[in-house]
Amino acid sequence: MKAKRTLNVALIGYKFMGKAHSNAWRQAATFFDLPANIRLTTICGRNRAAVRRVAKQFGWENVETDWRKAVADRKIDIVDICTPNDSHCEIAMAAARNGKAILCEKPLALDVDQAKRMVAAVKKGGVVNMVCHNYRRVPAIALAKEMIERGEIGERIFHFRARYAQDWIVDPEFPLVWRLQSDRAGSGALGDIGSHIVDLARYLVGEFKDVCAMSETFVKQRGGRRVDVDDAVTMIGRFRNGALASLEATRFAPGRKNAFTLEINGCDGSLVFDLEEMNRLRFFSRSPAAAGQDRQGFRDILVTEPTHPYIDKWWPPGHLIGYEHTFVHTMADFVGAVVRRRKAGPDFADGLKTQQVLEAAAKSGRVGRRVALN
Amino acid sequence: MKAKRTLNVALIGYKFMGKAHSNAWRQAATFFDLPANIRLTTICGRNRAAVRRVAKQFGWENVETDWRKAVADRKIDIVDICTPNDSHCEIAMAAARNGKAILCEKPLALDVDQAKRMVAAVKKGGVVNMVCHNYRRVPAIALAKEMIERGEIGERIFHFRARYAQDWIVDPEFPLVWRLQSDRAGSGALGDIGSHIVDLARYLVGEFKDVCAMSETFVKQRGGRRVDVDDAVTMIGRFRNGALASLEATRFAPGRKNAFTLEINGCDGSLVFDLEEMNRLRFFSRSPAAAGQDRQGFRDILVTEPTHPYIDKWWPPGHLIGYEHTFVHTMADFVGAVVRRRKAGPDFADGLKTQQVLEAAAKSGRVGRRVALN
Amino acid sequence: MKAKRTLNVALIGYKFMGKAHSNAWRQAATFFDLPANIRLTTICGRNRAAVRRVAKQFGWENVETDWRKAVADRKIDIVDICTPNDSHCEIAMAAARNGKAILCEKPLALDVDQAKRMVAAVKKGGVVNMVCHNYRRVPAIALAKEMIERGEIGERIFHFRARYAQDWIVDPEFPLVWRLQSDRAGSGALGDIGSHIVDLARYLVGEFKDVCAMSETFVKQRGGRRVDVDDAVTMIGRFRNGALASLEATRFAPGRKNAFTLEINGCDGSLVFDLEEMNRLRFFSRSPAAAGQDRQGFRDILVTEPTHPYIDKWWPPGHLIGYEHTFVHTMADFVGAVVRRRKAGPDFADGLKTQQVLEAAAKSGRVGRRVALN
Amino acid sequence: MKAKRTLNVALIGYKFMGKAHSNAWRQAATFFDLPANIRLTTICGRNRAAVRRVAKQFGWENVETDWRKAVADRKIDIVDICTPNDSHCEIAMAAARNGKAILCEKPLALDVDQAKRMVAAVKKGGVVNMVCHNYRRVPAIALAKEMIERGEIGERIFHFRARYAQDWIVDPEFPLVWRLQSDRAGSGALGDIGSHIVDLARYLVGEFKDVCAMSETFVKQRGGRRVDVDDAVTMIGRFRNGALASLEATRFAPGRKNAFTLEINGCDGSLVFDLEEMNRLRFFSRSPAAAGQDRQGFRDILVTEPTHPYIDKWWPPGHLIGYEHTFVHTMADFVGAVVRRRKAGPDFADGLKTQQVLEAAAKSGRVGRRVALN
Repeated sequence: MKAKRTLNVALIGYKFMGKAHSNAWRQAATFFDLPANIRLTTICGRNRAAVRRVAKQFGWENVETDWRKAVADRKIDIVDICTPNDSHCEIAMAAARNGKAILCEKPLALDVDQAKRMVAAVKKGGVVNMVCHNYRRVPAIALAKEMIERGEIGERIFHFRARYAQDWIVDPEFPLVWRLQSDRAGSGALGDIGSHIVDLARYLVGEFKDVCAMSETFVKQRGGRRVDVDDAVTMIGRFRNGALASLEATRFAPGRKNAFTLEINGCDGSLVFDLEEMNRLRFFSRSPAAAGQDRQGFRDILVTEPTHPYIDKWWPPGHLIGYEHTFVHTMADFVGAVVRRRKAGPDFADGLKTQQVLEAAAKSGRVGRRVALN
Repeated sequence: MKAKRTLNVALIGYKFMGKAHSNAWRQAATFFDLPANIRLTTICGRNRAAVRRVAKQFGWENVETDWRKAVADRKIDIVDICTPNDSHCEIAMAAARNGKAILCEKPLALDVDQAKRMVAAVKKGGVVNMVCHNYRRVPAIALAKEMIERGEIGERIFHFRARYAQDWIVDPEFPLVWRLQSDRAGSGALGDIGSHIVDLARYLVGEFKDVCAMSETFVKQRGGRRVDVDDAVTMIGRFRNGALASLEATRFAPGRKNAFTLEINGCDGSLVFDLEEMNRLRFFSRSPAAAGQDRQGFRDILVTEPTHPYIDKWWPPGHLIGYEHTFVHTMADFVGAVVRRRKAGPDFADGLKTQQVLEAAAKSGRVGRRVALN
Repeated sequence: MKAKRTLNVALIGYKFMGKAHSNAWRQAATFFDLPANIRLTTICGRNRAAVRRVAKQFGWENVETDWRKAVADRKIDIVDICTPNDSHCEIAMAAARNGKAILCEKPLALDVDQAKRMVAAVKKGGVVNMVCHNYRRVPAIALAKEMIERGEIGERIFHFRARYAQDWIVDPEFPLVWRLQSDRAGSGALGDIGSHIVDLARYLVGEFKDVCAMSETFVKQRGGRRVDVDDAVTMIGRFRNGALASLEATRFAPGRKNAFTLEINGCDGSLVFDLEEMNRLRFFSRSPAAAGQDRQGFRDILVTEPTHPYIDKWWPPGHLIGYEHTFVHTMADFVGAVVRRRKAGPDFADGLKTQQVLEAAAKSGRVGRRVALN
Repeated sequence: MKAKRTLNVALIGYKFMGKAHSNAWRQAATFFDLPANIRLTTICGRNRAAVRRVAKQFGWENVETDWRKAVADRKIDIVDICTPNDSHCEIAMAAARNGKAILCEKPLALDVDQAKRMVAAVKKGGVVNMVCHNYRRVPAIALAKEMIERGEIGERIFHFRARYAQDWIVDPEFPLVWRLQSDRAGSGALGDIGSHIVDLARYLVGEFKDVCAMSETFVKQRGGRRVDVDDAVTMIGRFRNGALASLEATRFAPGRKNAFTLEINGCDGSLVFDLEEMNRLRFFSRSPAAAGQDRQGFRDILVTEPTHPYIDKWWPPGHLIGYEHTFVHTMADFVGAVVRRRKAGPDFADGLKTQQVLEAAAKSGRVGRRVALN
């Protein structure tokens, strides 16, 4: 066994996502047999004291308050972007210019134009790049992907429906945080959680042909200021392969905390997933079981077997993993891509396509008609 | 107690719905303390031998092969229409002319034009009229209506989403039955099962402002003939009160047998229903429970208490009722309306409004843009 | 087709069970192609006015206040006993002497001694006899039986566990009704609901070898009188085939209305049932599915296919049936047994064996040790 | 803020539990604001190469092959015992003699005699001691405890029922691993998983008065050798407070991977938990909700709110945690106990009581009668 290469990571951002990513870098290096050593080299944020606390908590070696310095640092191999959406483009482009591998939180950008520039930059820089749609790496979702590819629900898909529902801003007194400001976030539920379901729609079913959407801002003022992002969006669409899509992203569903659910119906079966029971995948197969058709039913696959994606790194059957593990899997796969200089999906080109769907949805909502994707 | 009036019923149609209605007339008279005696006077269908068998099975006194005669029969008080959709209009109009109270299976008509004529006819005839959207009288749905009216999920509704999914024609070898023929059925999944969810949307939330839909015929030929109705339709829309709607009706969801599900989110709570577990209503309330917010959760109301709608007529708590009971409740309420000469929802005017939504959806699918309801 | 024989039924009792049985006799004759015509000839109870109301409601031809007369009536073919437990023995023995076929509500008797005399009487009388353990004829339970017999969970059973939980007497103010009086009911939860799970244990797994039980009367006085029956009983035991049993019957489980659940584990699979979702049977098979072991999971069989037991008589797939249907199935099978002079399980001999298990459990509770069944 | 003390940990054992504990020590120090610094000082196991790999994986500073040296090491503050059950006693007693705080995997000992000696030793040594029943610190279980203590299910408990079901040795070809050998493990399912449910029964309800049990070894030979531990045990019992217990531990339930479920019924409500959906607690309250009794139902509390036990250290509402987190919480609480020199439940005295219940159960199985606890 020859000595492994060491990859130095710079993390830009240190709050909710910064914490999730910090943990993931560490746990990926611990639980996965990575093809490189990972060093938590630099963490970066504007509030030095706050960043220092996170650095100490997770073992980041250096603290930086200017992301430009972190991104320009010659020893850094990987730039991991966890900042609000309005800075993704600038940071990623600088990182690409500096030849860094880039992992960027979703949504990739504020708009399609930014996303296109980011794609061009990583292409030009020749750097490995990935958007952190961590739900692709929930074991149950990865298993669903595998089952679809093996034809277990049939050659033809009829329906993809997904809903991402939360309730954290139902209270009209909830303040106007950055996620509710168009200039910081780009959009509301659409980009924040809608981007996840569009990414998974594309991942599991394929590219969209057209979409039609409606959105609403139920609470129009917060803290005396106008809310200029959507609170909820509903969307229907058609995939190029003929399947129909039905999507919804909302922050206005009381009792739904982080309720991302999906169902896919193919000509030979169906798959159902619920993030609030993320260790399960429900599967209906039209293939007659041994005893025939009247033994069919949705089966509840507990996705904790060592043969299931990622699970052999964790615990025995029936022992659950949680939300944070999806980031660990993402980091592990990303490191593999960096070392092997391979594509790790979803890359920025995927992020651009997702952004195009989101933008088509937003446009459809404004103009009141179906909008085609090219 | 003065002697009760007797109502003579003529049932037109004798197959799946004929059987459900026959049973319902008998059971309503048995389990409910109706304000009239019910006589199963005449059952009508073109195949005399087949109709005779059903007559004998359920105790219909007379068999008739010409619906015109049944509808013209002076002793008949109620005409119950269970024929394929293409004959609803003609039968109902004749019945209205003859002054009969009319219960008509859904969808009311083949199109808006027919529906308008039917509404005019019952108005002119001054007859009590009702569309048999039996799901309004699932106890859990009736309870949901009551809870919404009492403000238990708040004054404001954000979302209504419903899906009616079946899988009985996924097999391309399934034949071209009347429900798959435009001239007999009007439309496919849209009118057959979509009409139910549009009716419930209007019942529980209110009138639609506009809709946007896409539909698909996945299997385009059956038995060598072109399929000219939709296999599935997805729809989004907006209610006049500002709520967003997301609807889907499909016959192409493997494993979903009669899976009508709905969720309603209001500013103070949410309600969830699943027809495949029809004795339950799930309810999330944002009102702090005694012990505070961290005891909140969707609660699974077993709608089998004597205080729940219709249940005092049946069995003790925890003892389930089934599909057929929804028709019994419908007949019981309809008889009450006939005797008291009151409106029984949904009446034909409701049926027309539902038909207008369906037609707007169909049009939206064709023209690719949002269609407004007046 | 030769003319069918007509069977005249006399129903003794008219309250909760009387209502369920009345409905079942009528619906069995309507929905099942019975080998005899059924006449609701006589209903019997001590309160003439009350019995008359039930007679009118369900169409019983005659009202009788003395069960002896009903049972002695020469035209009666079937005696259906729905009275409190303390009169089962006397009525059944008289009916047997008079050569009537007998359907008797559970538990068969107050004690083993009575049960033995009843078995002797029906043997001597040569009459068809059955105990109304209606849950054997829930389609999902009948399907479970079929699957076990076909070896779908393997040749060897490891565990049977069942629980029947209710909550109707948790309130200490609830009055001392007959079901809470030893001289009327024999025992409390043990005989009333425990008898159902013991019957199903025997039906699905086999005879008991020994049992060990504990029981408790949580509320010791009601309305100033001592409660002399059990409120709850827990029981473990061993079947002759080596399987272990774990049983519980309680009326003290808040929120559990009629919650009879069971799970059976065999060497090749498991079955799970819940009466509060009675149209479903959950099935885990260790047989590798097409794609192998990591596609295994409990599957949720919606027991509404026409190939499932009893279902072809009712509605299309996905359309639920309810509690009352289990009685309809029981009556239909009983009529078949009467006409064909065959055994219809569970017969009185089964009822006796169940009574022996209950008595062994009660004895075990008193003496504090395992009690063997012979 | 004065400088924190540093606690040096020695971990004895490095396989499944060694991995879970290693991760937990690290994560506890990262996510919890512990009152001491934690150093992963020494990991100990007989296979030096294997231990080295684990040491490297988790960052243990030293590798040791002789537990006696690790336990005698003066710089060690905490000894964490993850070895097979037959060495718990010897290691713990040595650690106690050396004044180390001790965390010991369950079951505490091979038998009551060993457990008593261990209790005496920690008492004599004056050291903080704890048994690692990690499920006490599932947030949902901790919440259940809190709710019971606040009287949310009432002053009186009627029933505690728990089942811990697995299926990993259903295959008769599965080899005779140490957990299936009496001299290494003490017992089979009883001690391994039964100890968890006995611990939780005592934690949530109180001490046992007596128990009655049956056990079975379904596969009597493995790899040509006799299996001398139980495969499954069923147990009933009575608590000192009058509640009834029904317990089952089995490794022979196909489809049940790590299915620990419990239900507690009190006079005012019920609680239900399922480890395979460990982020939830189901709660039925008899307290009338605002709208009255007919809005009652089991509510599904998603135990991911920041006000729920331990959750504020992790992720936002609706973001799940998993199995490994229960160990993190255990280590965090243990460190608090060590620093504050307080009892951390369950301590060795608890472990002894649990062992006494297990031994009473085993004895009951042998002698066929109820066995009292003192």
